[in-house]
This record gives sequence, structure tokens and C-alpha cells, in this order.
Amino acid sequence: MNVSGASVSDTVPAPHETRDIVLPNHDSHVAQIAVDIGGSLAKIVYFTSSPDRKGGRLHFKKFETEQMDEFMDFIKILVKDAKARLPTGTELVLKATGGGAYMYYDRMQASLPGVNIQKEDEMECLITGLNFFITEIPYEVFIYNEQESDPMRFEEKTKAIYPYLLVNIGSGVSLLKVTGPNEFTRVSGTSLGGGTLWGLMSLLTGAQSFDEMLEMSKTGDNKNIDLLVGDIYGSDYSKLGLKASRIASSFGKVFKKGVRHTKDSFSPNDIAKSLLFMVSNNIGQIAYLNAEQHHLERIYFGGFFIRGHSITMNTLSYAIDFWSKGKMKALFLRHEGHLGATGAVCFTLFYFISSKDIVK
Amino acid sequence: MNVSGASVSDTVPAPHETRDIVLPNHDSHVAQIAVDIGGSLAKIVYFTSSPDRKGGRLHFKKFETEQMDEFMDFIKILVKDAKARLPTGTELVLKATGGGAYMYYDRMQASLPGVNIQKEDEMECLITGLNFFITEIPYEVFIYNEQESDPMRFEEKTKAIYPYLLVNIGSGVSLLKVTGPNEFTRVSGTSLGGGTLWGLMSLLTGAQSFDEMLEMSKTGDNKNIDLLVGDIYGSDYSKLGLKASRIASSFGKVFKKGVRHTKDSFSPNDIAKSLLFMVSNNIGQIAYLNAEQHHLERIYFGGFFIRGHSITMNTLSYAIDFWSKGKMKALFLRHEGHLGATGAVCFTLFYFISSKDIVK
Repeated sequence: MNVSGASVSDTVPAPHETRDIVLPNHDSHVAQIAVDIGGSLAKIVYFTSSPDRKGGRLHFKKFETEQMDEFMDFIKILVKDAKARLPTGTELVLKATGGGAYMYYDRMQASLPGVNIQKEDEMECLITGLNFFITEIPYEVFIYNEQESDPMRFEEKTKAIYPYLLVNIGSGVSLLKVTGPNEFTRVSGTSLGGGTLWGLMSLLTGAQSFDEMLEMSKTGDNKNIDLLVGDIYGSDYSKLGLKASRIASSFGKVFKKGVRHTKDSFSPNDIAKSLLFMVSNNIGQIAYLNAEQHHLERIYFGGFFIRGHSITMNTLSYAIDFWSKGKMKALFLRHEGHLGATGAVCFTLFYFISSKDIVK
Repeated sequence: MNVSGASVSDTVPAPHETRDIVLPNHDSHVAQIAVDIGGSLAKIVYFTSSPDRKGGRLHFKKFETEQMDEFMDFIKILVKDAKARLPTGTELVLKATGGGAYMYYDRMQASLPGVNIQKEDEMECLITGLNFFITEIPYEVFIYNEQESDPMRFEEKTKAIYPYLLVNIGSGVSLLKVTGPNEFTRVSGTSLGGGTLWGLMSLLTGAQSFDEMLEMSKTGDNKNIDLLVGDIYGSDYSKLGLKASRIASSFGKVFKKGVRHTKDSFSPNDIAKSLLFMVSNNIGQIAYLNAEQHHLERIYFGGFFIRGHSITMNTLSYAIDFWSKGKMKALFLRHEGHLGATGAVCFTLFYFISSKDIVK
């Protein structure tokens, strides 16, 4: 893959869709399609050539893992199109990663006769994808601070990236310590991830899509749900430096003995805000503790949990800043949900990130 | 306070009540009453003399913080009784700790005319209480392993207790690093504590008391609620050593796009089990990470969250063992919910734990 001159496309995508990556100098004569099938979402990344055949674009799509039929139909179209373009007899390769690469392998193979489906390790793909974005794509990585007039401050693209912690937030959360190209350990994880937020939110608010849930949380007030330090102390707990406004207990205002609350006793928007704080704060804290344990100061947050949602990024940024006393940095990506599939598509031409410049 | 010969009473208490501590050599001629008012529960510890005036007992009571009237009525009876016993004109002292010592100070003062209410710092009381139990009371501290025929294995009482981590799980969670008598730091905390479990459980299961919730969880199956590694991979994720049975995403099976689930779509017992695992696993993981950061190997779990519940203790023990690779130990106490109030009652006679033996 020739990534020279690569950039994020200026074309504004449809709502909740992801911007293309323009590759002006990459010519591909083989199909480049990769999938990353997770517990909740199945992601596809694929390359299309420009009409004039000079360069092309990487496209990013996602489906619910539950909607496997829709997902397979989309891949069939991509494969059909690739077959039409390529010389007869060319072998088509589809790279597949995520747990679903194993879980749905037989089904994919049956639906795509003649396609060579190759499984790739999930964690390797995540890191290869992340390294691609960090090292090659300008205006991709940013820190987030809602206090500033432009809350996204982009980092310069750089090759000096190690060591770092990758916190990938899908249905669950994986924490990877990365010390060099292809040198990584999964140091920790937590089951309190996107699946937890979406599961609890759908039970408690009736919201029917991720984006509806996030929208609700924007106008919610968690003080009606959470027990704050001030609710217990009547003021700050000054001796320990705990402010009255600090959350002492998530959902701590809900339970009252003998009072039969239902979810309708509370505003769904307040519940949504409280849940979002609960899960994001917790991930931020666990990320900090692992970064501390492994002496890492740069923490990249990936995965579809984030969805460019300002409250989420702000909560994660605040947690890292608070716990590390300003020493560590929370870093986000515009293509945060597509690290694994992008890593897998990089593998279609045996592309590995190294300290050298990369050509196909 | 003369604690020589102190022991846990053999008398079996009423269900959900706490055993007395027998103090055969302690004579008190002043009232010893202490309260610890938290976000959810208000605890009382008080001393009564034996009928023959040789020694006596410490009693342990709890009320919902919401039921302040009941709580105050109980204290009024204790105070009235103390006044009847003591010489006229003796000043009665009530030690008060927890956030409610501040929040409800004026109300207590108004309800208890002539009583000198003295506030004590919550964290100091927790540690003083814990030290009292560890150093003085046999058959108090235990490790828990459900695999063994008698899952509670008691530790010898000891004076060589430092350093250790205290994880106090009330509505919220405080983590205290204790390095010597009166030498401690609150190193961390999490808002995902008892209040979170009780709040979410009451919304999602309709349970109306803590013990009802814990009872429900006993027969629940979290596999119907949580997404396991095997649900994503179809098997173990062997390369990373993640077993198929491991929880990848708490509540990860709940959300389905376009399907409007309610809490009635799932068994309340399954939900209860999943919630209990979620909160307990998370506290165990955060406890481990903090113990690791501060080089501590003994982790005491206190607070009313635990309630002697076997699944909770097992989950916490498993988490500490799993993350620390067997290096750290989770320690429990029979009077886990009364550390703060017991610490405060110790202060009634200016009792401080030290390396010397303690007399009044």
C-alpha cells in the first residue's frame, strides 16, 4: 500500500458515517477488503480506485453483528464488483478479524465461494490499524478539551510513537501495552464496556439505537440519579480534597427501602447521563491505573464506544488528567471505531508498520 | 477500653443482624455510643455492661439512612438508658462519623439535648475499627474459598499488620493505603459501589431490600445477560489465554437494534447475578491495580456491600487471585459493615491502636 500523501477526505459523510481516507498514490490491482466482526458491530474497510485509476480511497462501513444478512449482502456486492474489475482467475482474498472471524468463518466461506478468507489476530490488527493512522494520516489523532473554543486539538503525525497504551472499547474493553512494531501485550481488560452501556441504557431508557442513547444523555442531569459527596457530607469532604460535586455513588440516589421505583420514576435522560459517566469514568480510571503500572504516558482510546461523542471524550480525558495529575494524555482518533478492520486491510498486501517508510 | 479476652459472641443473632463482641474485662462507667452515618446506611455501635457488671458487650445495629426517625428513636433510648445508669450531671458523649455526622449534626443535636456530639473523621474511624478487629478479636478475619468444605478460613489475630490496603465498600468505594498506626492515605475510590448495585437492581428486578437482591442472585445465570468470550469467538481466544467462559461484556447480550427489550424480557435473577458480578469484579480489579501500584499484598474488604454473601466474597477473592496471579490475598471480616462505628466507639475512651497493648 502506497500511503504517501494520504489524508482524511474533505467530503462530509452522512450522519454517523465515517470519512474516507484518500490515497492519491496507491494503485491496487487486487481487491482490498477486510472485515472486523465484534460482539456488537461488524466493520468493513475496503479500497476503491479512482475513476481515472490514479489513486483511490479507503471506505469505512459498519453493521450490527446481529444483522449478519445485511452485512453479508454488502460484502457480496464488493466481491462481485472486484471480480468484474480483475482478470479472470485472480484469487480474491478477504481478511477477517475480530471474534466473528472465527465464529462466522463457515458462514462467510459458504456465502462467498471462491474467495480466500484469511483470519488475522484481533489485537495485531488493532495495533497495525492504529499505527497506520498515527504515523500516516494528518489530522487524525487529537486531544479533547471542551473548555477550549475548538475542543479538538490535532497532534502532528509522527513515527516516534512507542511506548503507548491502547484502550480499545468495543462491547468489552481491551488494554494493550505496545512497545514497538509488533511488540505488544494485552495487559488488562474490563467487561464494563460499550455492551454494558448499551445494554443497561436500552433496559432503562427504552432507547433503540446507540446514537439515540447518546443524544438523550446530552440533556440529562446525573445529579438526580447519582449520590454526590455533597449529598452525604452536606459540603466538600475537605480533609480528603473530595469536592461536594464529586460522584460518590453512581445510581446511589435510586434505591429507597420499601419504595418501589421503576425506570419511569426517573428521567431517561438523567439515567442516560449517569450511565455514560459511570462507564466512561470507570474505563478512564482503569486505563490510568494500567498506564501507571506499566509506565506509559500516552493513552489512545479506540473502539466504537466513543463515536466522536463529546461527553464521552470529555469524561475519559478528565479521568486521565485527574488521576494522573496531568501527567498522562488521553488521545482520540477520527477513525476510532475502525482500527481492527483497517489493520486487516493493511495486511492484504503484507503491509506492516515499521520505522521505514512503507511502499507496497 | 480493656480488650483482653475479647471474642465474637457465640449467640446466634437474628437473620441479617451482627454478632456481639464480648468484652469480659471491660468495665465502663460512661456511656459508649458511636454512630457512622453513610450514604445508604446508618450504623450504631454501643457498649452494655453485664448484669453483674463484670465486663459487657459491644452491640451492632444498622438503619437505612433514609429512615432517620427510626435511627434517632433508637439512639434516644440508648441515651435515656445511659442517663438512668450514670451519676446525675455526667456529660454524655456521642461519637459520630461518616458524612452524616456533618449532614445530620444539627438534627442530632436538637434531638439529643445535653448530649455532647463529637465528630470524628470517617477514614480514621474505619482504620481504627479495622485495626481493633484485626489485632484483638480472634475468629474475625478470614479468607474465603468456596472450593473448600469450610470456605471461611480464619486468620490468626496478629499485631504485624502493616502495610495493607483497606477497600471499604459502602454506597461508594474508598481505597485506603495504611502503613502504620494513624498513617494512611486515601489512594483511590470508585463510584461503582453498593449504591450502584442496589440502585440498578431495584430498577431492574423490582427487589425491595438488599437481602432480597442477594437472594435472587443466588439462582441467577449471568450467561443469559452477559456476552462471554465464547459468544464472540465461538471458543476460547487461546492466543491471549482468554477462556470462552470469561465475561467479555457485562450486559452485552441485552441490546439488540430495533428490539424493544424491557426488564421483563429477562429473568430478574439472571440480571441480579450479572449486576453482582459486574460490580464485584470491577471493585476487585481496581483493588488489585491499586495494591500493585502501592506494593501491598494484603487487601481487607470492609463495608456493608459484602454482607457475608458468598458469591460476593468469592468474586472479590477470585478477582484478586486472578489479577495478582496468586500473589495477593483478599481478607474479609465478620463485622465488615461496622468498621467506622467501631472505630468511633473506640475513640470514646481515647482509644488508639498502637503496637503496645491497649488498656483504657
